Amino acid sequence: MTERAERTIFIEENSPRDGIQNETAPFSLRDRVTLIDALSGCGFQRIQIGAFVDPRRVPQMDSMEELFDRIDKKPGVTYSALVLNEKGMERALAVGLRHVSFFISASESHSRKNTSRSMEDTLASAEKAITRAKSRQVAVQGGIMNAFTCRFEGPILPDRVLGLVRSLLDMGVDEINLADTAGLANPRQVERLIHEVRHLTEKPIGLHLHDTLGFGLANVYAAWKAGVSRFDASCGGLGGCPFVPGVSGNIATEVLVHLFESMDIRTGISLSALHDVIGFLEGKVNRPLAGRVSSVRDQVPGAPASNPMRD
Amino acid sequence: MTERAERTIFIEENSPRDGIQNETAPFSLRDRVTLIDALSGCGFQRIQIGAFVDPRRVPQMDSMEELFDRIDKKPGVTYSALVLNEKGMERALAVGLRHVSFFISASESHSRKNTSRSMEDTLASAEKAITRAKSRQVAVQGGIMNAFTCRFEGPILPDRVLGLVRSLLDMGVDEINLADTAGLANPRQVERLIHEVRHLTEKPIGLHLHDTLGFGLANVYAAWKAGVSRFDASCGGLGGCPFVPGVSGNIATEVLVHLFESMDIRTGISLSALHDVIGFLEGKVNRPLAGRVSSVRDQVPGAPASNPMRD
Repeated sequence: MTERAERTIFIEENSPRDGIQNETAPFSLRDRVTLIDALSGCGFQRIQIGAFVDPRRVPQMDSMEELFDRIDKKPGVTYSALVLNEKGMERALAVGLRHVSFFISASESHSRKNTSRSMEDTLASAEKAITRAKSRQVAVQGGIMNAFTCRFEGPILPDRVLGLVRSLLDMGVDEINLADTAGLANPRQVERLIHEVRHLTEKPIGLHLHDTLGFGLANVYAAWKAGVSRFDASCGGLGGCPFVPGVSGNIATEVLVHLFESMDIRTGISLSALHDVIGFLEGKVNRPLAGRVSSVRDQVPGAPASNPMRD
Repeated sequence: MTERAERTIFIEENSPRDGIQNETAPFSLRDRVTLIDALSGCGFQRIQIGAFVDPRRVPQMDSMEELFDRIDKKPGVTYSALVLNEKGMERALAVGLRHVSFFISASESHSRKNTSRSMEDTLASAEKAITRAKSRQVAVQGGIMNAFTCRFEGPILPDRVLGLVRSLLDMGVDEINLADTAGLANPRQVERLIHEVRHLTEKPIGLHLHDTLGFGLANVYAAWKAGVSRFDASCGGLGGCPFVPGVSGNIATEVLVHLFESMDIRTGISLSALHDVIGFLEGKVNRPLAGRVSSVRDQVPGAPASNPMRD
């Protein structure tokens, strides 16, 4: 597996999408541009700038076209967006995105709440949308929400997830993402599902994790041991699905970065630049954010600030 | 390895010692008896009831003799205590404890702050104390503080730790404990050190982890994958060393229990009984405690409360 041989970590920063979508504090278009441009300076290889969804359902995701137009596109950074149906895909293609993430849910209950559609309808929509994207040579990540345990349905049978992975691969996606949308997965589930998906494809597998039960980093470590080196994360641990009550934020980018850097596994991310972004987000949401690295970085040998090689 | 074959988890509850020692809220002798007796009903195989140390240095650890006299000794539960020198060992033996934990530090700086003694003096003291305990057929866990990264000295060389492990084994300890006293260890360090210690002995290896950087459960999972099934923990994540600034609490017992139970690995602990203990502790320290399981247990399928088999 090339992922393993590289021993570097690929982080897709999700704060401009998953991070802010569930926040009640307003994020103006200007705030979102400021956030994304600041993230572009942190060293991320990919940033999910938002979602092409109905802004009446998710108001923080409005004006995606103008947002993409106004951000400073830095060479070497891939600007991606979440898409859940054909209309969203058309909008993403129209503005010229070169990478999109199309997510479907492995839970019928969540599918209906999140997109008002059945899993079957969503799969049909995915096929049309992904085919369109591939015909335009746009890279597509095919993602599966609730790939482990659903807030409404409990544990999801791996066979159901594997069936959806097969469908997405047949549609031509370039990579697979397994999302623990509700933050209820445990490391054993993560390890087992990754091994099974790895039997289906050698394409990159990414993980999108929430930290509802506090198992987030244990799941990261289990995934990394199972050969995965791609993770979604959100600065300060912001995030949550508007249609899943009780879910907490994404795994915090700064904690993820510090985890791997402390193990001498490179992420390419500047922790000092990241802390400026977290400061900006804390000002917007008006509360201290989750990541714990910042609180100890000035006192502890081995914590990022005392090691200039890390930044 | 028998630990691996059993696939069950042994948790030593530390809230009556590490949990409360750093709290400013007063814990009366009666509170401590109430706490320990409640813990005895949770299913723990071992409870660390306190430390035989100088109460002028650690006031919450006063009246250990009276405490041990007053607690309700439940059959099947081992009541243990922390000991750091010969005098502490004599006190522990005098009251009739059948298990003690003697800890030494792998960091010279921490050793002098924590016990006002050099590592060399501590080793000499350990030898005398452990020999005394073994002559009385008292079981001894030999523990190493700062086995991974020290708050003052940074990463500790594994060879230094392995040398101390060898010394403790020569003194006749029945089990080894590796403590991440400052909560700065990462899963790779944990995995590597466990493999190296395992080469020295087949006796049980336990881990004592703090969650300063948020890596606590990732370290647990790494340790479990490396064959370890003994963990210290503290209800609600209480804890911290009075002589190490910036360190956060122990890994939270309820999160640890839920982690393993969700992976179908038995701990023997009743989560509902544990939640009563956490409620008692929250009342005493007058703040909500860290564990995240309780906040979701009533809403999420698969969380403990909805599965009566777990309790």
